[in-house]
Amino acid sequence: MKVTVNRKAHFNAAHRLYNPNWDDAKNKEVYGKCSNPHYHGHNYELIVSVRGEIDPETGFVMNLDVLRRIIEVEVEDYLDHKNLNIEVEEFKTLNPTAENIVIVIWNKIKAKLDQGLDLKVTLYETPRNFVEYSGD
Amino acid sequence: MKVTVNRKAHFNAAHRLYNPNWDDAKNKEVYGKCSNPHYHGHNYELIVSVRGEIDPETGFVMNLDVLRRIIEVEVEDYLDHKNLNIEVEEFKTLNPTAENIVIVIWNKIKAKLDQGLDLKVTLYETPRNFVEYSGD
Amino acid sequence: MKVTVNRKAHFNAAHRLYNPNWDDAKNKEVYGKCSNPHYHGHNYELIVSVRGEIDPETGFVMNLDVLRRIIEVEVEDYLDHKNLNIEVEEFKTLNPTAENIVIVIWNKIKAKLDQGLDLKVTLYETPRNFVEYSGD
Amino acid sequence: MKVTVNRKAHFNAAHRLYNPNWDDAKNKEVYGKCSNPHYHGHNYELIVSVRGEIDPETGFVMNLDVLRRIIEVEVEDYLDHKNLNIEVEEFKTLNPTAENIVIVIWNKIKAKLDQGLDLKVTLYETPRNFVEYSGD
Amino acid sequence: MKVTVNRKAHFNAAHRLYNPNWDDAKNKEVYGKCSNPHYHGHNYELIVSVRGEIDPETGFVMNLDVLRRIIEVEVEDYLDHKNLNIEVEEFKTLNPTAENIVIVIWNKIKAKLDQGLDLKVTLYETPRNFVEYSGD
Amino acid sequence: MKVTVNRKAHFNAAHRLYNPNWDDAKNKEVYGKCSNPHYHGHNYELIVSVRGEIDPETGFVMNLDVLRRIIEVEVEDYLDHKNLNIEVEEFKTLNPTAENIVIVIWNKIKAKLDQGLDLKVTLYETPRNFVEYSGD
Repeated sequence: MKVTVNRKAHFNAAHRLYNPNWDDAKNKEVYGKCSNPHYHGHNYELIVSVRGEIDPETGFVMNLDVLRRIIEVEVEDYLDHKNLNIEVEEFKTLNPTAENIVIVIWNKIKAKLDQGLDLKVTLYETPRNFVEYSGD
Repeated sequence: MKVTVNRKAHFNAAHRLYNPNWDDAKNKEVYGKCSNPHYHGHNYELIVSVRGEIDPETGFVMNLDVLRRIIEVEVEDYLDHKNLNIEVEEFKTLNPTAENIVIVIWNKIKAKLDQGLDLKVTLYETPRNFVEYSGD
Repeated sequence: MKVTVNRKAHFNAAHRLYNPNWDDAKNKEVYGKCSNPHYHGHNYELIVSVRGEIDPETGFVMNLDVLRRIIEVEVEDYLDHKNLNIEVEEFKTLNPTAENIVIVIWNKIKAKLDQGLDLKVTLYETPRNFVEYSGD
Repeated sequence: MKVTVNRKAHFNAAHRLYNPNWDDAKNKEVYGKCSNPHYHGHNYELIVSVRGEIDPETGFVMNLDVLRRIIEVEVEDYLDHKNLNIEVEEFKTLNPTAENIVIVIWNKIKAKLDQGLDLKVTLYETPRNFVEYSGD
Repeated sequence: MKVTVNRKAHFNAAHRLYNPNWDDAKNKEVYGKCSNPHYHGHNYELIVSVRGEIDPETGFVMNLDVLRRIIEVEVEDYLDHKNLNIEVEEFKTLNPTAENIVIVIWNKIKAKLDQGLDLKVTLYETPRNFVEYSGD
Repeated sequence: MKVTVNRKAHFNAAHRLYNPNWDDAKNKEVYGKCSNPHYHGHNYELIVSVRGEIDPETGFVMNLDVLRRIIEVEVEDYLDHKNLNIEVEEFKTLNPTAENIVIVIWNKIKAKLDQGLDLKVTLYETPRNFVEYSGD
């Protein structure tokens, strides 16, 4: 009897999409305005979903306060109000597309969860565009 | 060719989180403000999702008006404006965490659906915290 | 390592639910106000979800600008501000329930996607009623 | 000490924009796809806002259950699942733009409220376009 | 040149509507399920709106971090996870209708703002019912 | 008989808050993480509200398609995917706080509206923080 518990979070960041193997024209062609060298930014909204058995003692899959704290340290403190390309280790060599960001976040949270818990992360880059990753 | 049909509903209720096998200090430590003996409350928002084949005569997986009526009787009449711990049979012996509430609701709705229909229930305890249960 | 990318879209249309094999009384009994012969309408909101591997060169599952253009041609130009029963080929012989509409949309978008990409379409008929179809 | 109380409601309807004093080309030029002779439709969402003194006995500006019932009779029963141009008296001679619809609704609700209460109606034609009317 | 700055907040609480001058039958007649003696509850969502001149040095009407802190102390710490009727001083003698709650909140925040700043508070009792108070 | 018509729009941008008359420590103290020299960003969501008489011929306060086009040119083309501090003329000498951005947008749209129309602009910097300006 597995239940999924979900918690929302958010961070704001600047980024640009850019592939260093391409010249500027090719970057512009593929990424359009998203390759602006002066950066643009987003309010990233996050849904962190953890699936597992209910602990019969607590009635919880996991204490959401513990999950809230993991998200705070692993995601918010790490990414909020940052320039992803310049200030975040992973994106110095990885293009910060929504797809790549959601995998980086998933890996950081997964490492802090108890084994036996499944994780899915949903990342809204805008209210109209969002991505999901479940680790498979 | 299976389609999922979804319907939203809602109810308001008071509850507290409390494990009678623990003393007050332990309850406070695990549940924080949620163990307040005077209760607090939520606007619970619900998404009921039913998956099945489309009936070629009606073009419906199931008539949403029938589903609406099931939700009204099984969930809204049963839980709306109630104190879950005091007034709802199941929660006299079961801690009304979101996880446990979603399973109680799932069981009540599932018993009223035609066989061959899959059910998932999503329960928002707040706009930021929600749980999902699919019966497996 | 598969990621799902999602894009929202919308169109407005008129429709009525009607089964020509039934008399008016039976249509009224099954579909209620939705069988009004003078039509009623909806703001249909759409989430198009595409799942696949990330292209290591672009960092994209697929370019959302390409997906946006597919949705524009296949869904918005085709259905927006239309009377579904009268003006849309498929619904001249198919009852435009949300279930049937979502399958028509799914088929039209799927035909334009690269092989190896999975597709799910979520269609909101109202903010409270919605359907989902994944092609299986 | 005046407080505003607000209640949401909704109805679905078909309509077209059309000025009978103009030819089809002019209607098309001004209203675009909205003048489609076969109609299109919307989920109209409504916020009804009533401002007045708090009754010290009840603690209410007005009983929202009374307001809910007024909206049900005056708006929902009157407009829901209707073709506005064909089936609603006012719009047989009045173009059903959002601006004109909100005034018709305002007049119908205002006539049922106690004197001394101010009324504002907000009408969403789509989640992106909406109008407001306060009677002045 | 005055601008309004708005900040959202939220708290969860239990309450019941009850007038001690009336018998139970009259309370039930006026307040319906809301007079349940065992309480029910809500996720109260709040918008705090402050209007004033922009400070040319900071570019702010007021520092939202200061406003956030005022809301935290005056509203969230004071009302969150409380039983309003039992645990909150003002509502021991005042019926905790949304109208009365919004005035209590307005008074507490107003006392902490600089003179010359106008205040409006919007309080959602549910996503469908909300009240507004501006102090006049 | 004046009605307000509202239209939503959006743009994404990078910015930082910074007062060149202050040293870095003072900027950090007042603006916190928002003064990060590498920039951060937002999805700015916009509601443009125009109030005026209904034109009896069109049934419109103003044609929303004209308003949509004004917003596209004056706001979206001008600000979308830009670094506000570096690439937008006004913010080379004006701190891009939400308060200052909303006034810049208001001035640009107002200049394009017919006289006799009132304008209000609401700017969401995040889903939780927003500002409003009406020109007075």
